[in-house]
Amino acid sequence: MIVYDNHFDKLMMPMIIAQGALAMGMEVNIFYTFFGLQGLMEKRKPKLPGMFRFFTGMIQKRMAKQKIMSYHEFMRSNIEMGANIYACNMSMEMMGWKKEDMFDGIKVAGVAKMLDMASEASVNLAFG
Amino acid sequence: MIVYDNHFDKLMMPMIIAQGALAMGMEVNIFYTFFGLQGLMEKRKPKLPGMFRFFTGMIQKRMAKQKIMSYHEFMRSNIEMGANIYACNMSMEMMGWKKEDMFDGIKVAGVAKMLDMASEASVNLAFG
Amino acid sequence: MIVYDNHFDKLMMPMIIAQGALAMGMEVNIFYTFFGLQGLMEKRKPKLPGMFRFFTGMIQKRMAKQKIMSYHEFMRSNIEMGANIYACNMSMEMMGWKKEDMFDGIKVAGVAKMLDMASEASVNLAFG
Repeated sequence: MIVYDNHFDKLMMPMIIAQGALAMGMEVNIFYTFFGLQGLMEKRKPKLPGMFRFFTGMIQKRMAKQKIMSYHEFMRSNIEMGANIYACNMSMEMMGWKKEDMFDGIKVAGVAKMLDMASEASVNLAFG
Repeated sequence: MIVYDNHFDKLMMPMIIAQGALAMGMEVNIFYTFFGLQGLMEKRKPKLPGMFRFFTGMIQKRMAKQKIMSYHEFMRSNIEMGANIYACNMSMEMMGWKKEDMFDGIKVAGVAKMLDMASEASVNLAFG
Repeated sequence: MIVYDNHFDKLMMPMIIAQGALAMGMEVNIFYTFFGLQGLMEKRKPKLPGMFRFFTGMIQKRMAKQKIMSYHEFMRSNIEMGANIYACNMSMEMMGWKKEDMFDGIKVAGVAKMLDMASEASVNLAFG
């Protein structure tokens, strides 16, 4: 999976799909690039897009009520369960962001590595 | 295919692709999730994004002139021609939306079912 | 790959991935449709989305400093290196855009051709 956007809804989807895929015994590789890279920064809080940004908190409460994990919990759980989470090296350089500010367990990779993984994957999805 | 956005352009693409794929004898499965779920609500009228929303009517007229089906006609035609259209169960619960308000013939499915279908598909595309 | 958006970040990604894929000896086919079609118009200058549009120039300078090609250079280089770039015929008719205003070497194709290519590709990605 490739993630290239920083909004709450676009970041949650790959997390939920990853959780399902890991439970089914599939291998999960996610590559975060461009604005998507923000999703790996531990201190950032993703919002919904446009005027919906003000409803992000409401949606998060509704998800909590239904016992759905938060974005941060999903990310940590997926990494613990064995998902490979990659930050795009070119995007990191361009944004000036460091691995230390990202979630623990994040790997760094380039486009060639991403294409290698995608060529061998049975399902490829790009979200953003 | 996965659809995760509610804008007119993002909703039309999978419809047009589905129509082409069905005509070529391919099996078509589309999974609607997050904001994309709105695309299954029969009474909603999808708009173009941002300031382009005001041009939605103009584009629709231009498409009608070229004898391209409307969004609603495409959806009904694809279902009739055998496309499997799935509403994401988690998104339905979160939004509080019901199957009765959706187009006739819509099925409900979860992430596991979506991953099963995607694993076996020869083409996987995510739109949004 | 399918490109269906006209923003700078969404247009750069497939260019960078194409460049990497061509270097690895992979065949590259990119299909531009809906708003993505703007990315093939030689005179248009893609911008970042929303309020980020004002930072497009800043990002472009930062990329130039790191010796990353510009969007126009990427497009021309990919075509020269053998990427097949397709403009969606239905979108062209709808927008009233002509092949003469596009980059040299662009081909025109429909949904059926796109599905044929996608069925045979080992990696399919949709950006927008």
